[in-house]
Amino acid sequence: MCELLGMSANVPTDMCFSFTGLTRRGGATGPHKDGWGVAFYEGAGVKTFHESLASADSRIAEIVKSHPMKTTVGICHIRQANVGDVCLANTHPFIRELWGQYWTFAHNGQLQNFTPDAGMYEPVGTTDSESIFCDLLNRLRSDHHRELSDDELVGFLVEHSAAYAQQGVFNLLLSNGDWLFSFCTTKMAAITRRAPFGPARLRDDEMVVDFGQETTPNDVVSVIVTEPLTSDEVWDIYQPGEWRFWRAGEAVRRGRKDVPIKPHPTNQGI
Amino acid sequence: MCELLGMSANVPTDMCFSFTGLTRRGGATGPHKDGWGVAFYEGAGVKTFHESLASADSRIAEIVKSHPMKTTVGICHIRQANVGDVCLANTHPFIRELWGQYWTFAHNGQLQNFTPDAGMYEPVGTTDSESIFCDLLNRLRSDHHRELSDDELVGFLVEHSAAYAQQGVFNLLLSNGDWLFSFCTTKMAAITRRAPFGPARLRDDEMVVDFGQETTPNDVVSVIVTEPLTSDEVWDIYQPGEWRFWRAGEAVRRGRKDVPIKPHPTNQGI
Repeated sequence: MCELLGMSANVPTDMCFSFTGLTRRGGATGPHKDGWGVAFYEGAGVKTFHESLASADSRIAEIVKSHPMKTTVGICHIRQANVGDVCLANTHPFIRELWGQYWTFAHNGQLQNFTPDAGMYEPVGTTDSESIFCDLLNRLRSDHHRELSDDELVGFLVEHSAAYAQQGVFNLLLSNGDWLFSFCTTKMAAITRRAPFGPARLRDDEMVVDFGQETTPNDVVSVIVTEPLTSDEVWDIYQPGEWRFWRAGEAVRRGRKDVPIKPHPTNQGI
Repeated sequence: MCELLGMSANVPTDMCFSFTGLTRRGGATGPHKDGWGVAFYEGAGVKTFHESLASADSRIAEIVKSHPMKTTVGICHIRQANVGDVCLANTHPFIRELWGQYWTFAHNGQLQNFTPDAGMYEPVGTTDSESIFCDLLNRLRSDHHRELSDDELVGFLVEHSAAYAQQGVFNLLLSNGDWLFSFCTTKMAAITRRAPFGPARLRDDEMVVDFGQETTPNDVVSVIVTEPLTSDEVWDIYQPGEWRFWRAGEAVRRGRKDVPIKPHPTNQGI
């Protein structure tokens, strides 16, 4: 139905290789052709590209693939619509400002009949995903002060993610540009690349990169995805309820919550 | 210091011609080389591109010029920095969600020592412009309900724009995707193109377009800019304090407020 891609790194790193693999699944090697979007943090700012068409055919996605934009946190999404029309307003990632930072949210899954409480943040489009994002920010703003600690923040994100996961499938990537939070209900995988770097081959395109040529020995770059993007590396597969809180390429906190075991959503049955 | 470009149209229309002229002024025919951004509404969504470099040299701006993205409301900005570093977070237009709509703001000018009251919306970057935008939205949210009439909205925007203009130079473009509000302190011009359409020649590039070939007889397209973009059309020059509220290509309300007469900011003296 959708696929997610996130990156956390300790040095500004481009996502061209991973983005190339992901966007092939938006209409070429996969069915997620109803829109795509990316958000790359650059300092406090965030550079975004969104379209409500297949990423595999997009001239703008082509530029994003071929024009390295270096970042320490990026989130990408390719969409296969279930709830909500195919339109720009329903295209992830969604962005809101909270406490003077841009927060970015991308979701894979579906919550049946999710009805958020009213609050300051409101969805512009008609997806359950954007409603959940607004609900999460409204609750965070009402429950916590901006000076909350990492422990308080992670506790909040884990508790609420587990609660959303009780209502459906909730695979999440969320960031404020400093950290990247990932939560898995059904399907997610990660890889951390560090020295000694080697080559990697995309599953979805004829592309091989030698990370040894692209990096310095201190670089740490983690990639979090719905389905592994490369065919010759070992990916760490999340279990249902597993979450990680990434910063500068490292999973600085991790854990697992009990969530209902559900089949991963596919084109069929949604 | 900066230049603005806005469009309001009654049919989805691309901004390639105007955007081509404007972005030449970002480092080629003009000094506004410290960043550029555009926001094109598409339904309830908004497609944005921002970079903190010269638009005249940008590959991404090149795609925006050559890849027609049709919209009924668009806002563009090229920046020559005065307050705030050259960085992505300081690049206009700024966007926030209010009442389930994306609001987009671009400003030319400077308010000395502007200090907003605290509120829900906060700047991410360090420009006076983004602080003013957040202040305006905070005041709108606290003073009005979402069901406010056009008269109430326009009254609010005009009063507050005139108040900001007491504190400095405040040339503004603001939109929620339905209407486009323009306010002039020092420099602004507009043109409304409608049948019979003719050709137009850019001032800043060797480009001529025959709008008769690009339009239907019922199209109405208005363009609002800091400096006229074409050399062979008659532009309507705003006077200090003049404002217009555009919808579907027409200035559906207009007026003038008393504002202090100031020199238009230039590279010198800022």
